[in-house]
Amino acid sequence: MKVAFVIYDGMTALDFIGVYDPIARLKTMGFIPDLEWQVCACSHEVRDGTGLCFVPTKVGEPLEDYDMIIVPGGVSARTLIDDVQFIDWIRTARSSSIKVSVCTGALLLGAADFLRGKRATTHPKAFEDLRGFCRSVVSERIVDEGEVITAGGVAASIDLGLYLCERIVGPEAREQIRQQMDYRWSD
Amino acid sequence: MKVAFVIYDGMTALDFIGVYDPIARLKTMGFIPDLEWQVCACSHEVRDGTGLCFVPTKVGEPLEDYDMIIVPGGVSARTLIDDVQFIDWIRTARSSSIKVSVCTGALLLGAADFLRGKRATTHPKAFEDLRGFCRSVVSERIVDEGEVITAGGVAASIDLGLYLCERIVGPEAREQIRQQMDYRWSD
Repeated sequence: MKVAFVIYDGMTALDFIGVYDPIARLKTMGFIPDLEWQVCACSHEVRDGTGLCFVPTKVGEPLEDYDMIIVPGGVSARTLIDDVQFIDWIRTARSSSIKVSVCTGALLLGAADFLRGKRATTHPKAFEDLRGFCRSVVSERIVDEGEVITAGGVAASIDLGLYLCERIVGPEAREQIRQQMDYRWSD
Repeated sequence: MKVAFVIYDGMTALDFIGVYDPIARLKTMGFIPDLEWQVCACSHEVRDGTGLCFVPTKVGEPLEDYDMIIVPGGVSARTLIDDVQFIDWIRTARSSSIKVSVCTGALLLGAADFLRGKRATTHPKAFEDLRGFCRSVVSERIVDEGEVITAGGVAASIDLGLYLCERIVGPEAREQIRQQMDYRWSD
């Protein structure tokens, strides 16, 4: 299984890391030993919305050949929806079986035309921005429309990560990973 | 207010980011406009326990002159407690008013002799490792001993971050930040 974590300048780090942690544990805790993940960006360094610097593992390469791509939100998402080059890059993920967003990452999936005809969610303060991109915006923590899964704001990333663990491997894996993360809550 | 986020090879990214997110919002949401934070390490790049690469803002500089230092846990923490050079570096934070750990970061505070005579907590699976470093290990989400605050495993970082927001600025700031993070839970 191959996973792409998309990162970009102005993203919210916790949107990314909250789902990265449980997904990476699918490998380290032995549930999917051959899990491969890449951190994909358009530049050699990426700074989050408050300046924290990450180094991606793939730069400027198409998002093809991934089973799942995960797109965080961030302060820059509302402007990136009009960045043709960036959205064209996100669109290269069209063949991924599962396209996932956290928070305002849903706007980017929407701009890439992945939400057409689907229900979706995002950060509660971005519901209006999302309306034009999907069939209906719903106030749920995680909205699973099969090949597209959207989640609420920032900290919903952890709930989403655990949800994906369960969907991909099953409830026992989810519970073991939740315990190892010392996460108290379960949807 | 000056905050040092300590990072090191083998740390757990969510330990760091879960507290970084709410603390950074103290500045971006206007509660502490002059908040300054640095990401402090001993090397120019830092890889977490599963290979994700961060770039620190301060490399090899003493951890002096910070009001608060925050130390994450990670798979490498149990070996780093015997790394004299690393622990000596952590010890340069002795004059910080608040020394904070997430998860097995408590072992590093312990090895630096910051937990002597104090109650402390860590990841539930590391309770035995912590015993030699403190007065008593307690199974609580957050243990506040005044100048030293320790928290539980990995995802406890978010609860800790919100706790620190309340302690530093007050409950109204905590609640506004919690809402903006779309975090559902409140201790």
